[in-house]
Amino acid sequence: MGNDAMNELPSPTVLGAAMYAVDTAARGFGVKLEVLERGRAEATMLVRPDMLNGLGVCHGAYLFALADTTFAYACNSYNRVSFAQAAQIHFVQAGRAGETLRASAVERSLRGRAGVYDVEIRNPAGGLVALFRGESVATDRELLAAVVPK
Amino acid sequence: MGNDAMNELPSPTVLGAAMYAVDTAARGFGVKLEVLERGRAEATMLVRPDMLNGLGVCHGAYLFALADTTFAYACNSYNRVSFAQAAQIHFVQAGRAGETLRASAVERSLRGRAGVYDVEIRNPAGGLVALFRGESVATDRELLAAVVPK
Amino acid sequence: MGNDAMNELPSPTVLGAAMYAVDTAARGFGVKLEVLERGRAEATMLVRPDMLNGLGVCHGAYLFALADTTFAYACNSYNRVSFAQAAQIHFVQAGRAGETLRASAVERSLRGRAGVYDVEIRNPAGGLVALFRGESVATDRELLAAVVPK
Amino acid sequence: MGNDAMNELPSPTVLGAAMYAVDTAARGFGVKLEVLERGRAEATMLVRPDMLNGLGVCHGAYLFALADTTFAYACNSYNRVSFAQAAQIHFVQAGRAGETLRASAVERSLRGRAGVYDVEIRNPAGGLVALFRGESVATDRELLAAVVPK
Repeated sequence: MGNDAMNELPSPTVLGAAMYAVDTAARGFGVKLEVLERGRAEATMLVRPDMLNGLGVCHGAYLFALADTTFAYACNSYNRVSFAQAAQIHFVQAGRAGETLRASAVERSLRGRAGVYDVEIRNPAGGLVALFRGESVATDRELLAAVVPK
Repeated sequence: MGNDAMNELPSPTVLGAAMYAVDTAARGFGVKLEVLERGRAEATMLVRPDMLNGLGVCHGAYLFALADTTFAYACNSYNRVSFAQAAQIHFVQAGRAGETLRASAVERSLRGRAGVYDVEIRNPAGGLVALFRGESVATDRELLAAVVPK
Repeated sequence: MGNDAMNELPSPTVLGAAMYAVDTAARGFGVKLEVLERGRAEATMLVRPDMLNGLGVCHGAYLFALADTTFAYACNSYNRVSFAQAAQIHFVQAGRAGETLRASAVERSLRGRAGVYDVEIRNPAGGLVALFRGESVATDRELLAAVVPK
Repeated sequence: MGNDAMNELPSPTVLGAAMYAVDTAARGFGVKLEVLERGRAEATMLVRPDMLNGLGVCHGAYLFALADTTFAYACNSYNRVSFAQAAQIHFVQAGRAGETLRASAVERSLRGRAGVYDVEIRNPAGGLVALFRGESVATDRELLAAVVPK
């Protein structure tokens, strides 16, 4: 995308706020959007006691939720509604109750409608908790128009 | 695993109940274990309004949660504590509020400690919602001993 | 795709022969197309001595080549040029020199341009060697027109 | 792995040469090992005419072969025989005949026996051709002992 087209886009801050306002699921997961730029996002999530599985560590689906949400913000940052087509996660070490985990999403490729984004999740000590790679598909719909609550 | 060793294992029903009793996260997702056999599981989840993302469809992380939980029950059905090492999901069509989705997990491979399981999620009309493939690693810990609440 | 549209398509046999005739790489891998139907294919490959890695077993890239080629035939069987967008392989057991491996590809999903195909590779004893999942994207180009040698 | 243990390992150069000498498949693919350090490798491959598929571009299996081989050198660089357990590849743009492609593998995680490595393939213009993520499992076998030709 050229710089001119970029300059006409709503700022990532505006886009992030609009998305987050109507993203009931993300708020339920306790995911907080911390940084949003074109193609890049960071978000945090506190591991709550209700997020633990039967073995007492953070359920993998909450790690996925944090990574997937961060990915979603990154790939929607161009104001085009984009969907996750597929995603893969590698679980490296357990997330523990009380830890605030931080996910960082970066764009690895964006060609036409197809994007690939890498997300890593780290614990407060900087240790790697999970690696995630997501594939996005962009539509022609404008994001701001799509997410404004009716 | 030989039939003799199998017969000495606790029944899948007992294992499933013990896991589910302490699986706070799975219960929070509203995932219900419907079927558990050695290496095979089925579970359901009602798509609630709080599971929707900013575009009004079921957040992908809830589809992952349903698939991942079903996979976890299937790979723990031999009474050995097993962890997800990695997982991949393909999103095929949206899940809608009010739908009860059903996930079916089958074992594709189990050699030594390493397992591969396929899960598919279908909506009430039988339409395919998502495909999931998970990799498990088994430990030497006995599941029933690990999950009994203290 | 409706039955009427299907009936107007060239037969899978014709499509398979046309693709194979110009598929230099597949022939170099020694992959032989055995079965081709709409959305389904089977192919075989003899593990030759030059396919072994430093540890004396079939190099994983040859297993990938067999699976990927079988997938390509399956997803091109509708006479639309289709590309692999992504693929994942799990290596279950080694392929040995002298074995003829058989790959079977089945369509798990085809919606619009996006397809998901599963391939399994088995050895002559029926043992599972590898599991593969591929994602395809279809174009508007007609396959027969695209592959006819100039 | 501590620095002391590292210092007692054979140099990556020695390990790379020993592996490559017996890696018939890698040499057949035309893959050349360019750089080998602990946990990191670079390799190149010229796209030859016999590597093209029916559409006239580099067959995806050759891209996989380049990435997988580079990954294999990186994960075996500690002198422990390590196997690929699974791998995923995203095809970003076509490889063309006559291009020398370069793959760079970096270690993202290594805990106990389980490793995750990322590989990217770029063309001579620096354009991204493919992204690869591989999972390795280390054994207790010493690499130099395993690959020495009998």
